[in-house]
Amino acid sequence: MILDKLNLNTQDREKILAAERATEFVESGMVVGLGTGSTVFFAINKLSKLIKTGLDFKAVSTSDVTTELAQSLGIKLVSIDDVHEIDITIDGADEADRSFNGIKGGGGALLFEKIVALSSKVNIWIIDSEKLVDKLGKFPLPLEVIPFGYKRVFERLKTMNLNPELRKKGNELFFTDNGNYIIDLQLKEIDDPDKWDSEFKLITGIVETGLFINIPDKIIVGRHDSVEILCKTKSNT
Amino acid sequence: MILDKLNLNTQDREKILAAERATEFVESGMVVGLGTGSTVFFAINKLSKLIKTGLDFKAVSTSDVTTELAQSLGIKLVSIDDVHEIDITIDGADEADRSFNGIKGGGGALLFEKIVALSSKVNIWIIDSEKLVDKLGKFPLPLEVIPFGYKRVFERLKTMNLNPELRKKGNELFFTDNGNYIIDLQLKEIDDPDKWDSEFKLITGIVETGLFINIPDKIIVGRHDSVEILCKTKSNT
Repeated sequence: MILDKLNLNTQDREKILAAERATEFVESGMVVGLGTGSTVFFAINKLSKLIKTGLDFKAVSTSDVTTELAQSLGIKLVSIDDVHEIDITIDGADEADRSFNGIKGGGGALLFEKIVALSSKVNIWIIDSEKLVDKLGKFPLPLEVIPFGYKRVFERLKTMNLNPELRKKGNELFFTDNGNYIIDLQLKEIDDPDKWDSEFKLITGIVETGLFINIPDKIIVGRHDSVEILCKTKSNT
Repeated sequence: MILDKLNLNTQDREKILAAERATEFVESGMVVGLGTGSTVFFAINKLSKLIKTGLDFKAVSTSDVTTELAQSLGIKLVSIDDVHEIDITIDGADEADRSFNGIKGGGGALLFEKIVALSSKVNIWIIDSEKLVDKLGKFPLPLEVIPFGYKRVFERLKTMNLNPELRKKGNELFFTDNGNYIIDLQLKEIDDPDKWDSEFKLITGIVETGLFINIPDKIIVGRHDSVEILCKTKSNT
């Protein structure tokens, strides 16, 4: 196996296995949503190789960084508003549970990722085994926030004892591709993610949350040298 | 009365009466939120005159157009994030009801107006008598929407039979100061504004709605040659 010859750590091996398995669901003629992040990187890489063997698809990007990567690898990109629907989206997650919920936004692309996911007929998440959790919340929960008046939102979250932190990149404030701030909440455990997602979204100034509720149809988990595929059944929807 | 000497239509007379009455609530040392629109224009104009007679305050603006106007009239502006709280905000409304709800956003500044309102200890709305309505909804309800993937939101609102229209300015799409689109809903009557406000805000891609629920503490209504002042009592809050 070629992966054995590379000096990869377990996490990267698992990411590659999950990512490459996901690309098998892409068929010629499809419109494919491309998420953002290190696991998606491996999927995009694999897709660019499949193009050379005849796979023909168009892609919708979820971030500037994915756009740049896809373009450099010869993947045809289209605007989300130039397609009627996205057939399949491949994206990573910072955490996922077996109820098909997750936390995303570690890379800051949560808003466009969520819009693309909701515009997709099928969503596939690709993760390494460490990201499959019993309960969400160990990973800090990102909220995308309008810069104008963000302090009011920040203080409110602080009063709610949610341990908000304004995300920085080095010494500078971090901006999303949409020009907003990210506030990360250190929650440890999220008991009722659906309820929290709504509660946060109702706060004026919060544009979107990193809680993705019941979004993926499949979660492909890299586990050692193989993958586990979690498939949503009707009882999950 | 000086207004009699000007050749003003009734609506403008009422706007001026309401606007000037509102400025009487501004005291030296206050931080004052300044809304956006034609009625607020008259308030800003009056405030600039009061500065010359000794009134000393700082203002937080809700839009580029208000910033420009205030600066040209010598009003000191501060950033919303440089003040702990706003003492009083004077703003207009496209419609207001006697339950202290309203529709705002005809000028497209709804997001920053709502953030400023929620950051203010006291909110005063100034309207002409035509804008005081029994039921909200005759005025089209604006929703501020992320451009990326807006068609999904638009189609969803269409499926809900809410008569969405993407706002244009001449032949071009209208952009808010925050770089978003406005979708106006032709609803005629809104039965449960609070419920609709939440329902819209939960839709990914909608940043804010023009429904302002229980926001103003006072509504000053210009009516012919005088003003009616609606004051919120504890039973309204």
